[in-house]
Amino acid sequence: MNNAVRIALDAMGGDSGPSVVVPAAAIALVRRPDVSFSLYGDEKLIRPILDAHPALARKTQIVHSDVSIKMTDKPSQALRAGRRSSSMWQAIDAVKKGEADFVVSAGNTGALMAMAKVCLRTMPQIDRPAIAAIWPTLRGESIVLDVGATIGADAQHLIDLAIMGAAMARIIFDIERPTVGLLNVGVEEIKGLEEVKAAGRVLREAGLPHLDYHGFVEGDDLGKGTVDVIVTEGFTGNIALKTAEGTAKQIGQYIRDAMNHSWSSRIGYFFARSAFNALREKMDPGKVNGGVFLGLDGVVIKSHGGADAEGFAGAIEVGYDMVRHELLAKTREMIAQANEGRTQLSPPVQVNS
Amino acid sequence: MNNAVRIALDAMGGDSGPSVVVPAAAIALVRRPDVSFSLYGDEKLIRPILDAHPALARKTQIVHSDVSIKMTDKPSQALRAGRRSSSMWQAIDAVKKGEADFVVSAGNTGALMAMAKVCLRTMPQIDRPAIAAIWPTLRGESIVLDVGATIGADAQHLIDLAIMGAAMARIIFDIERPTVGLLNVGVEEIKGLEEVKAAGRVLREAGLPHLDYHGFVEGDDLGKGTVDVIVTEGFTGNIALKTAEGTAKQIGQYIRDAMNHSWSSRIGYFFARSAFNALREKMDPGKVNGGVFLGLDGVVIKSHGGADAEGFAGAIEVGYDMVRHELLAKTREMIAQANEGRTQLSPPVQVNS
Repeated sequence: MNNAVRIALDAMGGDSGPSVVVPAAAIALVRRPDVSFSLYGDEKLIRPILDAHPALARKTQIVHSDVSIKMTDKPSQALRAGRRSSSMWQAIDAVKKGEADFVVSAGNTGALMAMAKVCLRTMPQIDRPAIAAIWPTLRGESIVLDVGATIGADAQHLIDLAIMGAAMARIIFDIERPTVGLLNVGVEEIKGLEEVKAAGRVLREAGLPHLDYHGFVEGDDLGKGTVDVIVTEGFTGNIALKTAEGTAKQIGQYIRDAMNHSWSSRIGYFFARSAFNALREKMDPGKVNGGVFLGLDGVVIKSHGGADAEGFAGAIEVGYDMVRHELLAKTREMIAQANEGRTQLSPPVQVNS
Repeated sequence: MNNAVRIALDAMGGDSGPSVVVPAAAIALVRRPDVSFSLYGDEKLIRPILDAHPALARKTQIVHSDVSIKMTDKPSQALRAGRRSSSMWQAIDAVKKGEADFVVSAGNTGALMAMAKVCLRTMPQIDRPAIAAIWPTLRGESIVLDVGATIGADAQHLIDLAIMGAAMARIIFDIERPTVGLLNVGVEEIKGLEEVKAAGRVLREAGLPHLDYHGFVEGDDLGKGTVDVIVTEGFTGNIALKTAEGTAKQIGQYIRDAMNHSWSSRIGYFFARSAFNALREKMDPGKVNGGVFLGLDGVVIKSHGGADAEGFAGAIEVGYDMVRHELLAKTREMIAQANEGRTQLSPPVQVNS
């Protein structure tokens, strides 16, 4: 694939709209020169910012739309008010029509997922989409899914999540057989929900070529980076994600309080400030950006609503890598392998009675 | 209640057994002089340590037992091997027999819960017990439950959790009407599980005198301390707890790395080291100790398995406060009020057809 990657951006999404999205595209263009952009949104807001980035302007078209989805719109409101007409819908629809290779929006997650589901639909053999987060760990990064697309999961959906997460891990971590763990609780004998146990049995027996099933993991394995991919249903995944974000903010506040506590700690802060800046960067959720919507028949990237241009550019780069390394094809291949395995393991049995 | 509070300690529980438990009792005795102790476990291990604390020895009896529950025993193994005979069982049984007012163990959580359930049983009108954690927040502390006693919860169990948590909050935070939130996910329209919504409706309408229902909260509200009591079922609660612990450890490692990064950061650390010590104390899970088992017909405190004497003493003090301020009576009173309210709100309806 040597053609340019065509990127659709919802220029109106996020807390800052085009004033973040356009500079982000300019940053991404420097790092990934073989791309072109379509910016969806209010042309009179986008144009002046784009004019300030001439290199970007040469690779970019603006597709005007009057309607923007608000961060506070409910998914059903967004669909009622913005189906077909909104910048968010039109950016997604460009992927559907084959005019773009992927779409990025920093708009509201519920609306983006609802529109992406209606417009793109799920992949064959996948019933429900998922949101995958890239989670900073002591070993580097892991993929955690589902962090809130849908609530509850039966064993089959957990297996689908494992496969989709492993396909994504192959690409972003560049490993052939990522390790996958199922999130569970530690008390031995009540060890988790029946569906988690059932999914674990299937994954262990399946012996998939591109998925190394590790077993159960617990909440503290997220930060340790015990496995490349951690699988859980969307309710627990969303709460784990926000608990970790909240804990990081809480400790950040403790650190600020501690450094202001006395004259000697302020002097200490002065000497250690470059270390603190590095630390702040590590703890900044905007740095690890780009939630990936998985299971859809198209690549959709959700940027953090409060991301700055650097953060949004990171989300664009995640999408670029997903397309260049063929996330959808890899996912389809792995689903096919899993289904083959399943047929071999449990052949249909004829029961005469 | 002016009698001494009689405390049963499982001296063999935790990573260090009597070498932590006995000094912890000595610390607790200084802070709460109106207590007496029974230490359950291997007398030849306990006696020499106790002899080194003469003030404690005067208030303490040793009840010898040959059997100790291992940290790795499964609950069913523990019950098979240690019912009646183990130090853990005998310490719990002292509460059952009325010989002790509460029990503390740092032994394995699953075994302790299984034995406590079999020995003490649940309170009237409470079907299942819960484990409540005291969670450090930016506002101070909150109570979070259930962090892993049982998995899954219907609306009634969530309501029971709210009531039990509020009763505990009245005591440890000394407020008459603690605020209570139900843990949920943020996307408006899929807002959570049916049972969470149903529990929210009942709590809102009930208008209980000792429970101020706040509404739904999200994962990041844990660290913020948005409410005094956060309610969720045990699977999600356990994962949230361990995710927060893991994130705190991860950031602790980042801080150590950052402070070793350069000469100037090491100089900075030198000046700010008292601030760092204060910070480490805030991030130390051993400091906020004493998971409380709720819903049982007796007060059972679980200390962290890796707690030092200071941490275990904290768990003893939590139990002391629960008994002095009558946790069980307050919980029963609040359950009765909730049931009254329920009858008034939904009187039995005669349907003729």
